[in-house]
Amino acid sequence: MTRPTEIPAYSLPTRNRRVILTRRPQGVPMPEDFAIDEVAMPEIADGEFLVRNIYLSVDPAQRGWASAEINYSQPVPIGGPMRALAVGVVTQSRSADVALGEFLYGWFGWQDYAVVKPAAIIQRATEAVPLSAYVGLLGINGLTAYFALTELGRPVPGNTVLVSTAAGSVGSFVGQIARNLGATAIGLTGDDEKVAACCSRYGYASAHNYKTSDWGAAVAAEAPKGIDVYFDNVGGVILDKALRQMAIGGRVVQCGTASVPTWIPVPTGPRNEREILTRRLVWSGFIVFDYAQRFGVANKALVGWYRDGKLTYDEDVAQGIEHAPGALKAIYAGENRGKKLIYIG
Amino acid sequence: MTRPTEIPAYSLPTRNRRVILTRRPQGVPMPEDFAIDEVAMPEIADGEFLVRNIYLSVDPAQRGWASAEINYSQPVPIGGPMRALAVGVVTQSRSADVALGEFLYGWFGWQDYAVVKPAAIIQRATEAVPLSAYVGLLGINGLTAYFALTELGRPVPGNTVLVSTAAGSVGSFVGQIARNLGATAIGLTGDDEKVAACCSRYGYASAHNYKTSDWGAAVAAEAPKGIDVYFDNVGGVILDKALRQMAIGGRVVQCGTASVPTWIPVPTGPRNEREILTRRLVWSGFIVFDYAQRFGVANKALVGWYRDGKLTYDEDVAQGIEHAPGALKAIYAGENRGKKLIYIG
Repeated sequence: MTRPTEIPAYSLPTRNRRVILTRRPQGVPMPEDFAIDEVAMPEIADGEFLVRNIYLSVDPAQRGWASAEINYSQPVPIGGPMRALAVGVVTQSRSADVALGEFLYGWFGWQDYAVVKPAAIIQRATEAVPLSAYVGLLGINGLTAYFALTELGRPVPGNTVLVSTAAGSVGSFVGQIARNLGATAIGLTGDDEKVAACCSRYGYASAHNYKTSDWGAAVAAEAPKGIDVYFDNVGGVILDKALRQMAIGGRVVQCGTASVPTWIPVPTGPRNEREILTRRLVWSGFIVFDYAQRFGVANKALVGWYRDGKLTYDEDVAQGIEHAPGALKAIYAGENRGKKLIYIG
Repeated sequence: MTRPTEIPAYSLPTRNRRVILTRRPQGVPMPEDFAIDEVAMPEIADGEFLVRNIYLSVDPAQRGWASAEINYSQPVPIGGPMRALAVGVVTQSRSADVALGEFLYGWFGWQDYAVVKPAAIIQRATEAVPLSAYVGLLGINGLTAYFALTELGRPVPGNTVLVSTAAGSVGSFVGQIARNLGATAIGLTGDDEKVAACCSRYGYASAHNYKTSDWGAAVAAEAPKGIDVYFDNVGGVILDKALRQMAIGGRVVQCGTASVPTWIPVPTGPRNEREILTRRLVWSGFIVFDYAQRFGVANKALVGWYRDGKLTYDEDVAQGIEHAPGALKAIYAGENRGKKLIYIG
């Protein structure tokens, strides 16, 4: 496919504002770990294109990307722009695969403009959904919920699905997808307002505040035969307790470890191998990018449910790039209400 | 199918010797946890039959069966005969499903005679293999190796399969089956004689004494891309180290936890959930009886390899029921050379 590559008619600034990682964070990235700088706009080379970011995404996974700890990607370099997902529009292109004016979701970083190659694209925004849905519903949050639940959790009608960070950017989709598949979703979350949102908006049959309730006893009463699927975003003591309430043959999806403050040194916990054996669990790790070749399958399902009113989401939108440095601290403190994103369009 | 149910011509004794569990073992059952008694032979009722045991099986899983700790079956009652697998011959039958003279493998206990129903049968000994093979090759050891490796480990040609207790009653089959499937098997075992047996007899490309060698470094050198399948019979620190050497997408089969002395209280270890996530592991628990409907499939494969000279085994046979009380202590100390069984025919 050949696309025009001439210099566009957009009026381009000559400077680019960027949110720079200034030091290696200890655990959750704090505002002090970042600075906002302004640099000259680089020229695009053959094969590259320029994106004007519109929505910057704030994702819990950024903690891992900024960390030097064990992970699935190289740490963000100190002094470089913070690795981030974003939705933007192509304002200049020297790539035959990318057209001017295309709206894209990809690895564009916390900055006004990104000079990137087509490999940075995760999705092209072509579905009839709001543009911001590409950082949530059709972004890694919705894609994660869809693939992790359907491929690893594999609930069947009548199953009980327990979800941690149930009102979060992933969990809020998991509850609804589980319900749409005929399963009964039970949510765990950290405040009563989110407990209410789980039940009123996110598809959960029930939800519990893990800080204030005996959720283990409540789940035992609600699922007397045990938990069929535990969708875990937190790890730690909540995981340990959930493992001991799993049904025979239950599936545990390890999607995040948000409750564990640091992995250096590796923290200790109760040994879980005998639970895995005696309950015949299947405990699987999930990273959404392993499913990149099949994002189109998820789009179709997610957009279908969205159009049918069976999949909703909430957004917590800040205005202006100056909100980025404090955004991860805020979401790890549970302050956001819905998917956190930053509008800089 | 109707079979004769008349009283047979066998000369039956009137007393039955039994190995009784006299107290709840602390960890591995010791000789002092058992006594041998002699009781009157019970009459068989309608639907029951009488088995004269020939080979008593000694299995690591008996530790769990005798324990009050979390498990997949009810604890062996104190004062009752020790739960055990055995091969025997039917000497009396009032079951239409069981014929006199049939050789059976099943839940016949550590005793001379067992009065049981057909549900106690695991396999009928009809294949052209030595009778004792039904407590090993075609018993839970061979069946476990076959199903746990092929269904949960799923090695493909070229994969690296690491196995703990590699020269044991299960591990000795796992190494050979892995090799037969085109994978490279690496064994871990506790003495140098067994290391040699792994390589000379049990299909392993290499083996390491985990007590005396830096096996982690050796495995890293032998499998620079990581371990594709870890077949774990031991749990504990060996498991922890193996998890940290898994390849992306690796499978961990939890088949036993022999290295953990007790689960009351639950011991602690390093948290493993981030390893599962970042390496996208699939960690599954295995209990052979979940596959009971498909034992015939395994028999066919196992007997085929055996006849072709691609699957061998060793037996460590004691003579006389008086050897049963000390047998579990001996196998947990690694004293056996091959499958431990007791001939009382």
